[in-house]
Amino acid sequence: MYSEFSLIEFIKNCQPTLPKHIEGIGDDCAIIFRGEENQADEQVVTCDTMVENIHFLRAAISPYELGRKAVTTNLSDIAAMGAKPESIILALSIPKGITNDYLEEFIKGVNSWGVPVIGGDTTKSPEHFVITITAMGRVMRNNIKRRSTAQVGDVIYLSGTVGDSAAGLHAILNDLTCQPLVFAHNNPTPHISVALELAPQENVHAMMDVSDGVASDLVHILKASGVGAEIDTAMIPMSGHFKDYCKVNNLNPVELAVTGGEDYVLLFTASDKVMCHCDLYPIGKIVEGAPQINWIGEDIRKSGFTHF
Amino acid sequence: MYSEFSLIEFIKNCQPTLPKHIEGIGDDCAIIFRGEENQADEQVVTCDTMVENIHFLRAAISPYELGRKAVTTNLSDIAAMGAKPESIILALSIPKGITNDYLEEFIKGVNSWGVPVIGGDTTKSPEHFVITITAMGRVMRNNIKRRSTAQVGDVIYLSGTVGDSAAGLHAILNDLTCQPLVFAHNNPTPHISVALELAPQENVHAMMDVSDGVASDLVHILKASGVGAEIDTAMIPMSGHFKDYCKVNNLNPVELAVTGGEDYVLLFTASDKVMCHCDLYPIGKIVEGAPQINWIGEDIRKSGFTHF
Repeated sequence: MYSEFSLIEFIKNCQPTLPKHIEGIGDDCAIIFRGEENQADEQVVTCDTMVENIHFLRAAISPYELGRKAVTTNLSDIAAMGAKPESIILALSIPKGITNDYLEEFIKGVNSWGVPVIGGDTTKSPEHFVITITAMGRVMRNNIKRRSTAQVGDVIYLSGTVGDSAAGLHAILNDLTCQPLVFAHNNPTPHISVALELAPQENVHAMMDVSDGVASDLVHILKASGVGAEIDTAMIPMSGHFKDYCKVNNLNPVELAVTGGEDYVLLFTASDKVMCHCDLYPIGKIVEGAPQINWIGEDIRKSGFTHF
Repeated sequence: MYSEFSLIEFIKNCQPTLPKHIEGIGDDCAIIFRGEENQADEQVVTCDTMVENIHFLRAAISPYELGRKAVTTNLSDIAAMGAKPESIILALSIPKGITNDYLEEFIKGVNSWGVPVIGGDTTKSPEHFVITITAMGRVMRNNIKRRSTAQVGDVIYLSGTVGDSAAGLHAILNDLTCQPLVFAHNNPTPHISVALELAPQENVHAMMDVSDGVASDLVHILKASGVGAEIDTAMIPMSGHFKDYCKVNNLNPVELAVTGGEDYVLLFTASDKVMCHCDLYPIGKIVEGAPQINWIGEDIRKSGFTHF
């Protein structure tokens, strides 16, 4: 059976040759170049699906939060390219149990980031609620950030703490309560303003968003850039709630923080000083070598979260 | 419970004001204007979902045909705007029973129209195979065709016969065999080359594709344009296979042909002579009055096919 990544690789490899103005599968977004000049306004496109009982339990997230989160996962990919979200295409497959009130709250959540829905499709579903969103954004050509441009010597940064979402999911699945962590799992925020500050900075080299966990996602940057990384596990940024929750529930905080996924913070590499009005957390550096992570401190053996 | 159309109306009405360069929900595609001049190259975007056991039975269509048809429904919307398809975003939610061989054949079908997949998402599904495709196309601004531009006195045309797909579905659901009709249901062709011939002709006014049946789809043109229509049921183009099948199975051919859906031919209105290398079928004319169809010949009471 294909894994998620091997299926994507298969699809990528059997495509007809792309026209020169398109960069297809391989980064957080595809890029469609529209302009002729270096400063032209280009388009990025991404797509994420959320399936009931795979990505969410309907009883564990409000419809407003679900709509909001379904958009967030996409806007986070737009931000990862250094781009500004422009519009959304919304496809819903709706099972019988979903009421009008539920749908209206869901749509309020979809609208909550202010990015307009400009098209889509609505269909019946035999049993499960399925949400597919395609999001489009715009970015100046010179500001586009990719996974493939990390350089040896770069410092590796995160734009926020990691692990809260994974701990929130752990709490939901184990019928535990920790309101701030469950809230973090259900209400991630796309780091758009951070991305728009980082995008024009030339010394910010590679960038992506953390959706499957740092341990898995960083390897995409390493493979695309042909470099290795050293990460100091003592530097992984974690919230106080998260550390307390791990202690009480006997979980390894570093391992959960880097393999849990759904953090939707930015992971990027940069030389020199980075200018940003938000907190940034250096966690290690890019080194020469095979595309793998050398963990300094604790050894991390689990890889990241994968959907199948 | 919202109908498909009332839900779309609700979503449309609660959107933030769109930027001036975007036309959102209301036609076969959204339009994103990129250029500054009348002859600029603009973008159209559409999205269609196919859900197992709602839009297809896995046992009744080959994976190659399914992949091909999922793309066709989108390319037909692109054609309806007078645009040329450029790229596809493919989202798949895959249940356990789907094998690697099945997926590979499916992807061959997706690729069969030569439009590249440039991104997407692949996830697990608890039970049913769900396919959402977002397709993008390009069109010169002056060539864009909309639903809202039909004019009193226009002749109404179809770009092909209707009913074959609906009869093919009838055969599948009733365990009857009629190979050409089942083939038509599983292998619709997007009328792209016809659309590209019609698009530059200024006397071609309103256009859309027939996905829910002429009886339902034409009303969208009438409402958007603020006009009425007279359709001569004797002029509805039907294939010989279709007429034979209806006779043998005691079905009303005109009613099935105009309400069956999934024809994916073009429905358009034009003044003066239309130039086209393909067969075109005049079926009636645009008249003043309420946005409804006056059927000349047989009275059609059923409305079109709706998904929920």
